[in-house]
Amino acid sequence: MSLGIVFLSEIMGTMMLTLLGCGVVANVALRGTKGNAGGFLMVNFGWGLAVMAGVFVAAKSGAQLNPAVTIGVLVSGAKEFAPGVAVNAGSVFTSLGGEMIGAIIGAVLCWLAYKQHFDAEPDAAAKLGVFSTGPAIRNYGWNVVTEIIGTFVLVFVILLFGKSAAGLGPLPVALLVVGIGASLGGPTGYAINPARDLGPRIAHAFLPIKGKGSSDWSYSWVPVVGPLIGGVLAGIGVQIMPLLVK
Amino acid sequence: MSLGIVFLSEIMGTMMLTLLGCGVVANVALRGTKGNAGGFLMVNFGWGLAVMAGVFVAAKSGAQLNPAVTIGVLVSGAKEFAPGVAVNAGSVFTSLGGEMIGAIIGAVLCWLAYKQHFDAEPDAAAKLGVFSTGPAIRNYGWNVVTEIIGTFVLVFVILLFGKSAAGLGPLPVALLVVGIGASLGGPTGYAINPARDLGPRIAHAFLPIKGKGSSDWSYSWVPVVGPLIGGVLAGIGVQIMPLLVK
Amino acid sequence: MSLGIVFLSEIMGTMMLTLLGCGVVANVALRGTKGNAGGFLMVNFGWGLAVMAGVFVAAKSGAQLNPAVTIGVLVSGAKEFAPGVAVNAGSVFTSLGGEMIGAIIGAVLCWLAYKQHFDAEPDAAAKLGVFSTGPAIRNYGWNVVTEIIGTFVLVFVILLFGKSAAGLGPLPVALLVVGIGASLGGPTGYAINPARDLGPRIAHAFLPIKGKGSSDWSYSWVPVVGPLIGGVLAGIGVQIMPLLVK
Amino acid sequence: MSLGIVFLSEIMGTMMLTLLGCGVVANVALRGTKGNAGGFLMVNFGWGLAVMAGVFVAAKSGAQLNPAVTIGVLVSGAKEFAPGVAVNAGSVFTSLGGEMIGAIIGAVLCWLAYKQHFDAEPDAAAKLGVFSTGPAIRNYGWNVVTEIIGTFVLVFVILLFGKSAAGLGPLPVALLVVGIGASLGGPTGYAINPARDLGPRIAHAFLPIKGKGSSDWSYSWVPVVGPLIGGVLAGIGVQIMPLLVK
Repeated sequence: MSLGIVFLSEIMGTMMLTLLGCGVVANVALRGTKGNAGGFLMVNFGWGLAVMAGVFVAAKSGAQLNPAVTIGVLVSGAKEFAPGVAVNAGSVFTSLGGEMIGAIIGAVLCWLAYKQHFDAEPDAAAKLGVFSTGPAIRNYGWNVVTEIIGTFVLVFVILLFGKSAAGLGPLPVALLVVGIGASLGGPTGYAINPARDLGPRIAHAFLPIKGKGSSDWSYSWVPVVGPLIGGVLAGIGVQIMPLLVK
Repeated sequence: MSLGIVFLSEIMGTMMLTLLGCGVVANVALRGTKGNAGGFLMVNFGWGLAVMAGVFVAAKSGAQLNPAVTIGVLVSGAKEFAPGVAVNAGSVFTSLGGEMIGAIIGAVLCWLAYKQHFDAEPDAAAKLGVFSTGPAIRNYGWNVVTEIIGTFVLVFVILLFGKSAAGLGPLPVALLVVGIGASLGGPTGYAINPARDLGPRIAHAFLPIKGKGSSDWSYSWVPVVGPLIGGVLAGIGVQIMPLLVK
Repeated sequence: MSLGIVFLSEIMGTMMLTLLGCGVVANVALRGTKGNAGGFLMVNFGWGLAVMAGVFVAAKSGAQLNPAVTIGVLVSGAKEFAPGVAVNAGSVFTSLGGEMIGAIIGAVLCWLAYKQHFDAEPDAAAKLGVFSTGPAIRNYGWNVVTEIIGTFVLVFVILLFGKSAAGLGPLPVALLVVGIGASLGGPTGYAINPARDLGPRIAHAFLPIKGKGSSDWSYSWVPVVGPLIGGVLAGIGVQIMPLLVK
Repeated sequence: MSLGIVFLSEIMGTMMLTLLGCGVVANVALRGTKGNAGGFLMVNFGWGLAVMAGVFVAAKSGAQLNPAVTIGVLVSGAKEFAPGVAVNAGSVFTSLGGEMIGAIIGAVLCWLAYKQHFDAEPDAAAKLGVFSTGPAIRNYGWNVVTEIIGTFVLVFVILLFGKSAAGLGPLPVALLVVGIGASLGGPTGYAINPARDLGPRIAHAFLPIKGKGSSDWSYSWVPVVGPLIGGVLAGIGVQIMPLLVK
């Protein structure tokens, strides 16, 4: 399969992911929406089903949708992201690029879908919260620990049982993300995906959002570094426990 | 397959869709019901599972249930709605007719099931809200944008992965609709289906509902035009990205 | 298959159904439980997954679990409830008997599981509500209409797509029941199953429940007659729409 | 398969189980989390999906994850926990050991993920509640009855339909646990698994948790003995109803 298809596939899939994922936060957090104050479980289902939609759309490239997964697959020693998509420098960088671009586009679409509610919302922090995660209690060290643990769970299950998100299947991956969000999302809002966090943060920085505040760049490295470490650890885990792999 | 079967299939499936879909809104919104104030996530699950029931019932005709899907399939260049149901002028108009008639019948049945609660509810807007969508903030342009984006997600995933709702499968389609509702339903209540909105609105207009108010015809074109544009864009998207199709 | 196995299978399956189904209402409604005031969506999921457990357990006899399904299958003209279980007077009465006995046993087990919370709860109506349904607005005619519509949806989908609950599969049946509950449960609490309502009502009548009130026998015929009519109509519907059957 | 693989498999799977399961309680119960006061249904989904993750990870050893399941399989007379894993004294004790160790590790990881929120939470009982179950109304006899009933449902369905958790499948087992939690979790918080309760209680006892109180050892035998009795009864039930086994 050409790298162009991988690139397009990861763009479209990750676009779906952040469009629907950021969307559910907008629905719960912004003033005047129909789902306002809908609760954390609704956010968990929204993000989980956002992943499901992304996995359906990006099936051709293995539906990585997440640099932590891409790197985890690389570290695990797997030979393919999907049938016909070999793991090598070209496919890795193509996938990472597609994930970042798709994540930005999805966040822009989310802003358009909720344009009037961004305008109506007075709280700048609520607006940033639609795009990117932030910690409940800011402590970079512990925040990184939480992101490592959450991402390890995600990538380890994917690598162990399905070898890729598309291999595990759209519905199991979705439910796994619902579960990780409900269970481990309390301290940091579960980025567990560098592209999901950094892409929308970039969109937040350049979009002309009415009354927006800081993009909180001082925290921005946490949901990048934590998930990458978690993905690497999951890849290593699968390497040293090959007999558990299905 | 005869067009008569397609017609009957789409009627019965879309009837299930609006009976259960309008039903969950009635349960959450009308006075004195057991699910009163049950929350937006309950509405999302209710509508998603309404689609599931409709897809089971209308499997024979591809379970289009939605003019935006019917038109999206047409634009995509697909040859069949379902095995034995070719895409042509006859099957398109038969399906559209069945969807509208089924949507009206389902809304009438919902009114019968909740008859006493319609009688007990004093707020005319709540009654209309059971039948048809309305915007959280009325602005036709942005409301159309939101409906376009939501419907694009629905039809694009269906066309890309399953070629039809029945092909994607009842449960994945249901969860996709739960996700779109949770994530993109905040501004307009996610019609994402012209028949789902216009059919019940017609029922609202002719039914002898106690204390009913306006059927809000000035907004009625938004949940028709927005979803149709979204469906066309999804059909075009699949045409220009054929290599992503599963 | 011997009628003895059918009998045992329906007893065990319907026991699971009412144990878990009545259980979730106890959890939401009785004083001092951990799920107190958990919301209607939690009740919907509890009942839906109760059906799932019952379908797993009673797979051998087709997992009818519900006289409305048993009668619906009979009216539909189907030849078997499950592989090796022919539809005839013997299997119909055996199934109906097993469903009633299982429903009673399950309700007794639910009472034991929540014994202390029944003792702690002062409201007699809340106690009866754990066992049997009651109307939000009492009007026998409209209450029957609501039960007919809800049961028609359940049995029609089962007969059309799966021929039996076991044929449709435990998870789709569960989700269908979640959906019917969320959408059509508002007026009457969705018995949609005579055994589910009458069996626990009998248990309520004979169990030594502390501070219990009336078993509301004047309403008891509604959740029996309504569902049976709904099941018959679904059976007739499948007969006159044979070309829609999968 | 070597017992070493069984041991590692059960450790990793049960670690996932208690990490995610205790995590959702931490998210709902501890001060300052994003999911604070998220409701009992969220706890039910969190624990159910924790089981799903554990079943994926421990598929090789049959994903017992629970001494009540291990003992239930033994009593049922089944020959294998999974393909290549015979039921004998060695595999039983290896599995039990792996379950306990995994449960402790998972609880430690949960504490690390929520470290700052444990520090911020003033209520010692809320902290213990993250690790282990406690009764809504303390009465050892009735508490044991509730745990027996809940565990019987879990193990009976697994043995009857799937022979093992992995055989029933990750998603059905997850939903079964969601259902048991919603329906039978009201009185005791549904341990239904001795390792899930005792392992984290041991972790609570030795971890340097700020402001922690008693580990409530006087109750600790209830969620061990009750589930074991329930598992044994389920194993006996399958023995005396062999014709219901799928």
